[in-house]
Amino acid sequence: MPHKPISPALDECIRLCLDCYRSCQQTAAMHCLELGGKHVEPQHFRLMLSCAEVCRASAALMLNNSPEHHLQCGVCAELCRACAQSCREIGDMDDCVAACEACAESCERMAAGGGGQPRQHHQDQRRPAH
Amino acid sequence: MPHKPISPALDECIRLCLDCYRSCQQTAAMHCLELGGKHVEPQHFRLMLSCAEVCRASAALMLNNSPEHHLQCGVCAELCRACAQSCREIGDMDDCVAACEACAESCERMAAGGGGQPRQHHQDQRRPAH
Amino acid sequence: MPHKPISPALDECIRLCLDCYRSCQQTAAMHCLELGGKHVEPQHFRLMLSCAEVCRASAALMLNNSPEHHLQCGVCAELCRACAQSCREIGDMDDCVAACEACAESCERMAAGGGGQPRQHHQDQRRPAH
Amino acid sequence: MPHKPISPALDECIRLCLDCYRSCQQTAAMHCLELGGKHVEPQHFRLMLSCAEVCRASAALMLNNSPEHHLQCGVCAELCRACAQSCREIGDMDDCVAACEACAESCERMAAGGGGQPRQHHQDQRRPAH
Repeated sequence: MPHKPISPALDECIRLCLDCYRSCQQTAAMHCLELGGKHVEPQHFRLMLSCAEVCRASAALMLNNSPEHHLQCGVCAELCRACAQSCREIGDMDDCVAACEACAESCERMAAGGGGQPRQHHQDQRRPAH
Repeated sequence: MPHKPISPALDECIRLCLDCYRSCQQTAAMHCLELGGKHVEPQHFRLMLSCAEVCRASAALMLNNSPEHHLQCGVCAELCRACAQSCREIGDMDDCVAACEACAESCERMAAGGGGQPRQHHQDQRRPAH
Repeated sequence: MPHKPISPALDECIRLCLDCYRSCQQTAAMHCLELGGKHVEPQHFRLMLSCAEVCRASAALMLNNSPEHHLQCGVCAELCRACAQSCREIGDMDDCVAACEACAESCERMAAGGGGQPRQHHQDQRRPAH
Repeated sequence: MPHKPISPALDECIRLCLDCYRSCQQTAAMHCLELGGKHVEPQHFRLMLSCAEVCRASAALMLNNSPEHHLQCGVCAELCRACAQSCREIGDMDDCVAACEACAESCERMAAGGGGQPRQHHQDQRRPAH
């Protein structure tokens, strides 16, 4: 493969974002809707859906090798922390809590610039040397 | 309709995000790929794709009535500003520049908390009054 | 703009798919979750979420000018018809019913090949004349 | 966990769809854009993007436990077969070819109704026994 591999840290963060997307979407649609009650309380359920959404967006920006991925990872970490907390309070969603926390930790490292910088920055293009 | 309407500011920002999604995705796939050359330069093209992605995510969080939408709007505004700049430098993408700038302005207001707060915050739920 | 405009039929179908996405996502997150009861019945709610998802995918394939968009539009039409029916049975979701039916009609025309063919087919590329 | 686990076949198809999404998105953004030439030929590149999109939609409908997932899997299989063929013709994208073919095979089984039916159908709700 001629293209250089992405960093192991970036690769892991992409995987954890897609795992968390999967866990939130499936838990919301299967577990929460089946159980009802506090599981379909608006604030909890919206948070599950929005967490799934930002996880997918974070994975996309990292897969796109976009230099702005750290911004999206920062938002993703916030939503994942809130979602883990909401799931913990309702209870009986240990797998989703674990997926959210693992994703949050990895995204926080990305947001802080740790180890996952894409190879190229479009700033380089926008400000050519003269 | 029993549910209260969302604020006009939020409604407008959702529309501008979906307009910008549409403009970036279509311009990338139709205009840039057809013309080639600097239009498919990696940094520019990735930015088009990532801008489309965050616009879609911002619209989703606002449609979900998520209190964290201002965070996603902040990221969206950053990408839209960068994308408008990249399109302007390459030239001949005036519609996409306009869509990105309109979306960025609206998202910047959302990110600053201006006029588009959803009606309920899940914090209310997580910290009930006793 | 050097790129040729897409057909009016395709342009309208993209708009109706994004309108339907918006209506399903917002109605699910705002109206259904707030009202609860039969509005959060698993089969109804999952259908709302899945309809939103396929509308977004149909819009994307049309924006990408992909020759396979008619296949995705066919799936979208099926989900929109089912979602309109489910919303009608539950009642009090007239806007969402209207958005689903308008999208279904437009997507059915696309699925049947009517008036919205993208300009180029990748089959042309894969089987060049010699 | 109170909710019943999904079938192993469904679980595997979700995983293969997300793997294929990841492979197509990353290969397009990293490999194809870097190499240019035939890799950014419009029909090939649009197919990569659209394949990524339908893989994501298929995963979503399966995660949502939607009875219509077999329709979306049918579209996904078509795009994955076309994308594998396009990548094979251009060459040097063996990983993406493998991901597309594995996803196509699994989705074809789903489309044929094989082993991955969700537990409940909204048809049951729409046509109650009397």
